[in-house]
Amino acid sequence: MKTRILPCHPLPLVLAAWSLPAFAAGSAVIGENLLWLAIILFSARLFSPLTGRFGMPAVLGELLLGVALGNLGLIGWHYFDTVRQDPIIAFIAELGVIVLLLQIGLETRLKDLVEVGPRATLVAVVGIAFPFALGAMVAGPWLLGSDNSHTNLFLGATLAATSVGITGRVFRDLGQLGMREAKIVLGAAVIDDVLGLVLLAVVSGLVQAGSVSVGEVVGITATAAIFLAGSVGVGRWLSPHASRWLANLDAGPAMLFALVLATGLFLAWLAHAVGLAPIIGAFAAGLLFEPVFLRHFETPHIVREVAPLLDDLDRGHRMALTDLLLRHTQKQHEHMIEPIGYFFVPVFFVLTGMQVDLRAILDPQVLLTAIGISLLAIVGKLVAGFAAGRGISPWIIGWGMVPRGEVGLIFAMVGKQLGVIGETTFSVIVVMVILTTLITPPILTKLIHQNKT
Amino acid sequence: MKTRILPCHPLPLVLAAWSLPAFAAGSAVIGENLLWLAIILFSARLFSPLTGRFGMPAVLGELLLGVALGNLGLIGWHYFDTVRQDPIIAFIAELGVIVLLLQIGLETRLKDLVEVGPRATLVAVVGIAFPFALGAMVAGPWLLGSDNSHTNLFLGATLAATSVGITGRVFRDLGQLGMREAKIVLGAAVIDDVLGLVLLAVVSGLVQAGSVSVGEVVGITATAAIFLAGSVGVGRWLSPHASRWLANLDAGPAMLFALVLATGLFLAWLAHAVGLAPIIGAFAAGLLFEPVFLRHFETPHIVREVAPLLDDLDRGHRMALTDLLLRHTQKQHEHMIEPIGYFFVPVFFVLTGMQVDLRAILDPQVLLTAIGISLLAIVGKLVAGFAAGRGISPWIIGWGMVPRGEVGLIFAMVGKQLGVIGETTFSVIVVMVILTTLITPPILTKLIHQNKT
Repeated sequence: MKTRILPCHPLPLVLAAWSLPAFAAGSAVIGENLLWLAIILFSARLFSPLTGRFGMPAVLGELLLGVALGNLGLIGWHYFDTVRQDPIIAFIAELGVIVLLLQIGLETRLKDLVEVGPRATLVAVVGIAFPFALGAMVAGPWLLGSDNSHTNLFLGATLAATSVGITGRVFRDLGQLGMREAKIVLGAAVIDDVLGLVLLAVVSGLVQAGSVSVGEVVGITATAAIFLAGSVGVGRWLSPHASRWLANLDAGPAMLFALVLATGLFLAWLAHAVGLAPIIGAFAAGLLFEPVFLRHFETPHIVREVAPLLDDLDRGHRMALTDLLLRHTQKQHEHMIEPIGYFFVPVFFVLTGMQVDLRAILDPQVLLTAIGISLLAIVGKLVAGFAAGRGISPWIIGWGMVPRGEVGLIFAMVGKQLGVIGETTFSVIVVMVILTTLITPPILTKLIHQNKT
Repeated sequence: MKTRILPCHPLPLVLAAWSLPAFAAGSAVIGENLLWLAIILFSARLFSPLTGRFGMPAVLGELLLGVALGNLGLIGWHYFDTVRQDPIIAFIAELGVIVLLLQIGLETRLKDLVEVGPRATLVAVVGIAFPFALGAMVAGPWLLGSDNSHTNLFLGATLAATSVGITGRVFRDLGQLGMREAKIVLGAAVIDDVLGLVLLAVVSGLVQAGSVSVGEVVGITATAAIFLAGSVGVGRWLSPHASRWLANLDAGPAMLFALVLATGLFLAWLAHAVGLAPIIGAFAAGLLFEPVFLRHFETPHIVREVAPLLDDLDRGHRMALTDLLLRHTQKQHEHMIEPIGYFFVPVFFVLTGMQVDLRAILDPQVLLTAIGISLLAIVGKLVAGFAAGRGISPWIIGWGMVPRGEVGLIFAMVGKQLGVIGETTFSVIVVMVILTTLITPPILTKLIHQNKT
């Protein structure tokens, strides 16, 4: 973490952009961003019931809305072209996926994750190794026709990536985070992020230096492992104490909210600082807050108002109401994070959709190669599903790991910067990422529905 | 609204910052912003009960925390120096004050505002005219020793500005938005913003062209008036219909939330586009949603769960509970915006505090002049309080109008750009803005408490 020292300003008061909305150069952007957020928020919400009527998950609606908005340039309307490169909207989107994973963490019990630990590890390892091998040994030489082993290694790494945002959102929207499959996928995604980081370091090392520094790999692995074990271990030890101490200072809902959200933001930053995806930190933060840890905070307002009315009720009613109010109280922190998710999460998925440039699909050569590689990418992850063992739907696990999302793009981008991924290969990878990301929500939704019946 | 056309990208997919957090140049900033937000959110919440123990309002705690964080550079720790110029944090802060005014609007009934309309207009006019005269005819020539009439006109305009964020926050924190004084101040602030806009145009015209174009002034006034009347008039006509139509599509809480927040963001943008402060638009948006307009949306989850238990209760309990649940349902949209406020509002006030550079106060010449001008600034607005008429506390009204906040700074900045406000005068104005902003919350809190007893 570097401290940047700004040159001393001649003015006694440095005016930030907010104080000059109407006159500073960046003012148009701040103004326009308000409109963009309003449009994204509102149209995502309008689109979601429409996709719902076709039996499609809401997240697909947001992705497709993004694709539509992002490609209005094709029919000559370029208003949204600046949105996809706007750093403020990008940050809000990043907050969106961080909040989503924080919510998923809050709704997941650590105990359940530990229980599926061995299976999740197996799924993660197979889900990295098999697609990597397919990518490096089949997709590269045969589909791309590349004899550059560095290119093929990077293609393999890209196929090995997993992005858990899409899958987590589908499970959550369906209220199925409690399924064992959901827990295995979440656990595997965390492990995958560490393995992916190591894989990227190894592949980059091979390309840059021709060899891999064992010390560096051990260092990266150790840092990531220490972060995960440390944040969850120290966090869960600290959480009840911090909660009691803070509630003692101010037991109101604002404090509870600040505790949970600030922890999420902090661990997202820390994960980012050690090289992991910020969402892994946010997910870890969600695991720290068992309802029982937060018992020192005030009960919600409505519960306090209902409580005095309970005394004169008969036993049956009193118990039913008390139970209901208790459940409501225990979920208070989740309820407060919910609107933050309503606001930010669609921004992430709409912006993800906006990254899709339909012109890429117009090149038949690129499209065909990409479809071939996508099939390999899907097969590779489906095999991992079967590593989950008995009593588990291998298809749900496998499809849950299919979306490559932003992680795959980051790998491809590093390869591009190192000069081993060319323009065409990059386009192919981008289309593969798009296809695996767009195809998963409807299929996963169907599989989960089938599994329930 | 200009459409900006980006050069066509060679890549089929334009990667926005979010997809490259770990590798793009701006990545450090996105990562650091997560940490800054965590620190601001958490420490603001910690600071608030501490100030509470000294009988100080929470908003003063946030402002002082900002002053402390913003001046750590004085003791050699420059970590926070970049925060006050970071456009992303600035945007989040802007969202914060927009959300605050949206909340205040939601908690204000339009009927009550109209009722105090004449009084609010009188307060606004006196509150613009008197401080303007004091600034231009007393503060300029006598305290600054300036014989440049343009400088004095601009100083007058700066003293005439009102920023309603601080005052609104104090009323809201004390749960006193229902006071007639609160409504008069809010109404006067809206009118003030229009008058201030006109005043700025007139003064700028005089300085730039030596004369005022009557057409331009009429145009500005008409645009602002049409915006206000139009947004509130059309909005309130549209609101019940839109609400019914949207609830028909999807009656869930996410839709209700999106409707209210997207409207707030949209009108904030529209206000900004016609030259008014975005917060005026957000306040207007809040006035559009009477609970009865939103009756087609689902009742909150807890209400639906409690409802079936009511049937067998005796009449007294049933009525008490039904009444309580009804009130909870009617405030559902306010409850959902609340956490958004918990997150963003402190960022605005902490960042406002961070704009204060304590070095400015170390120059005794600047400080003394600024104190003198601040006294005039306060007196000018207190006089306006007495224009509110009988049965109203003139002191609460007057002090409610005292903070100049960002509006005063914007006026000073325009004068600086036109070359009529020099460095020293600018420093003096900045210290005046700081003093009027920091001194108001504790005094207003005391006055409101006294008024209640």
